[in-house]
Amino acid sequence: MPVSESMNFLNEIAQRFPDAVSLAAGRPFEGFYDLDDVHRYFETYRRHLTDRLGGDEVAVRRTLLQYGRTKGIIHDLIAEQLRVDEGIDVDPDAIVVTVGCQEALYLTLRALRHDERDVLLAVTPSYVGVHGAAGLADMPVLPVRESSEGIDLDDLVAVVRDAKAAGLRPRACYVIPDFANPSGVRLSRAARERMLAIAADEDILVLEDNPYGLFGDPSGPPTMKALDERAQVVHLGSFAKTGLPGARVGFAVADQRVAGAQGDQGVLADQLAKIKSMLTVNTSPIAQAVIGGKLLENGYSLRAANMRETETYRANLARVLAGLTKRFGGVPGVSWNTPSGGFFLLLTVPFPVSDDLLELSAAKHRVLWTPVHHFYADSQPRNVMRLSFSHLRPDEIEEGLDRLADFVHEQSAN
Amino acid sequence: MPVSESMNFLNEIAQRFPDAVSLAAGRPFEGFYDLDDVHRYFETYRRHLTDRLGGDEVAVRRTLLQYGRTKGIIHDLIAEQLRVDEGIDVDPDAIVVTVGCQEALYLTLRALRHDERDVLLAVTPSYVGVHGAAGLADMPVLPVRESSEGIDLDDLVAVVRDAKAAGLRPRACYVIPDFANPSGVRLSRAARERMLAIAADEDILVLEDNPYGLFGDPSGPPTMKALDERAQVVHLGSFAKTGLPGARVGFAVADQRVAGAQGDQGVLADQLAKIKSMLTVNTSPIAQAVIGGKLLENGYSLRAANMRETETYRANLARVLAGLTKRFGGVPGVSWNTPSGGFFLLLTVPFPVSDDLLELSAAKHRVLWTPVHHFYADSQPRNVMRLSFSHLRPDEIEEGLDRLADFVHEQSAN
Repeated sequence: MPVSESMNFLNEIAQRFPDAVSLAAGRPFEGFYDLDDVHRYFETYRRHLTDRLGGDEVAVRRTLLQYGRTKGIIHDLIAEQLRVDEGIDVDPDAIVVTVGCQEALYLTLRALRHDERDVLLAVTPSYVGVHGAAGLADMPVLPVRESSEGIDLDDLVAVVRDAKAAGLRPRACYVIPDFANPSGVRLSRAARERMLAIAADEDILVLEDNPYGLFGDPSGPPTMKALDERAQVVHLGSFAKTGLPGARVGFAVADQRVAGAQGDQGVLADQLAKIKSMLTVNTSPIAQAVIGGKLLENGYSLRAANMRETETYRANLARVLAGLTKRFGGVPGVSWNTPSGGFFLLLTVPFPVSDDLLELSAAKHRVLWTPVHHFYADSQPRNVMRLSFSHLRPDEIEEGLDRLADFVHEQSAN
Repeated sequence: MPVSESMNFLNEIAQRFPDAVSLAAGRPFEGFYDLDDVHRYFETYRRHLTDRLGGDEVAVRRTLLQYGRTKGIIHDLIAEQLRVDEGIDVDPDAIVVTVGCQEALYLTLRALRHDERDVLLAVTPSYVGVHGAAGLADMPVLPVRESSEGIDLDDLVAVVRDAKAAGLRPRACYVIPDFANPSGVRLSRAARERMLAIAADEDILVLEDNPYGLFGDPSGPPTMKALDERAQVVHLGSFAKTGLPGARVGFAVADQRVAGAQGDQGVLADQLAKIKSMLTVNTSPIAQAVIGGKLLENGYSLRAANMRETETYRANLARVLAGLTKRFGGVPGVSWNTPSGGFFLLLTVPFPVSDDLLELSAAKHRVLWTPVHHFYADSQPRNVMRLSFSHLRPDEIEEGLDRLADFVHEQSAN
């Protein structure tokens, strides 16, 4: 099954069964959303811009309403947020503001892809969108085994070396170190450091995708970009979970020195910007202003801005874990992992879960989940499903797990 | 010179000489912009949505602030605008709302590109972005000669047949029928009809890009999509000039029946949406709401919404034409074409205009223009420059033409 079919199938089934409880959607909780925030954020950013531009209202209007800077207008605020929330110190000029994190991912892969020898590695199972972006960029994805610690680093070395031996150029390894999609696993600090050392030895980049990290325990390990001393990490950021998904704003931090067109040194961010100028030209400054206003109103801290959301996600995770124990504790062949945060976990069941079984679950039991084969970019059913709980209320979680238990018990009895 | 370098050079020189008069930028006139419009448009669309969703405020918030429909949320309003302004009758489900017209162009090319045999044709000189999008999609561009009528249709047939004879698959021909970029030429109705007949005979699509048409005389020829009886035209639309550039919203009308993954029939729009789901996921619904509100407030007519802008562009064109006559009438080797609308015209001078000469013009004479070689995606200087006048006030036009005359006379004397 091509990746685009995969995304499509999953979206489409959710639309066909609107009364099903969705343990499938990776959406942020929307209970705190307020449309008036959009206006206020925009005005907050507008005032900031007016101050910065010395009261030049023509320039303010031009910045917010005309065509604009390819790399974006809130790069300085994002750099400040990264410093405050993540301890990442980066030149704002190395940041490209993008149409969601997905565009940042595509731009990075397209920039790294020179010819058919260039390949991407990805901890697998991995986020569906990475297979999609790599496919668009004509870049094959070599899977690296996941482990209970997040990534099998010995396998990473082996895959890189095998690829090189086969005449390929492994350019980067994609990873979500904090609460991976789909597994929910968080890499230890030691694993991050070893992965950076491997990247240095093997001369590959790390593509660090970080949509969920800010909801985790702040005493957890630093991001890989914060540990990065040799510009080996391209950090991909999303405001879809911490900001507002409807703004469709994300970014890439790409401070790698690279050879430019005339052989001069530039930063990778400028190469991403050149590709972006051919793809979406620039990210809507209106949408950027909404995110910029949220950053300004919260002292540049999205961790501070998301206190209620963080509490919601933690409570949801605890409820799901307790609910699984209550319904499946001691049931043969049923097990699950126990992430310490994030939006997802993996549930193992005593039968392979195909798309056909998902249809049955949706139609008969009114509950949706995600067959894990979609994260392998194939259609080979495995005994594992991803459960998502980020956007649900407590009663919906209980109802969803009841329905899921009915489905699993019925299938196990077959 | 790679296309991305080309766009970059042109942007960069404008930034380096901010006090130069720019006869280079293709930006819309911003004198009527008002930041308060953003709030009002958003609220207008919000009320529309509330009515449509029967007052379900949770659904309204979800539509505007969550992840959303890949093909967009204002497709129905766009279909209505196309009916009112252009006489185009199209199913809203055949419309994909995109991050500006540039994304619509890329999605279309990526969908048409299956392997290295697929090629694009483009009337050349042509918009820089088409070379850029084709490059990203790994699709070679075969130039079709321009004529004083806009396109040399005999050459179109010859290029298609030569390509087929060489084992290539010409998939489409890109054209701006109304006030082309860079030449400003408008295709006659007869030329449009003949081009459609050729497309039918040769089994290629027409990619009709229409950023400027609405500013033209409404008694002019219909769009090619309005004349399209056999679904041969993919119509690419932009709200950057008629709506608000800062929203970064455009669209593709792609109602072609195509074979889907399982061999079933779908519309091309659904293939574009699948690619979009891997690239930008969906177009910001906040940005879409701003454009939607503008459509609603103007009875779906962007022609009606742009009466002042249309008058400005017409007056600017007349002023530039009169100003050129005054400054260059009878000067040997200097001539220009006389478009009936749009943002651009071509000025021929007695010497080749290179990027180096543009630098000199910027640094010494403080006037910017665009060397036409950028529209051929090469770096071979020709004796032609593009002049743009859309965003300038009358006094800026006069000053810019004075400076340009100084530059041209100085160079001609060398």
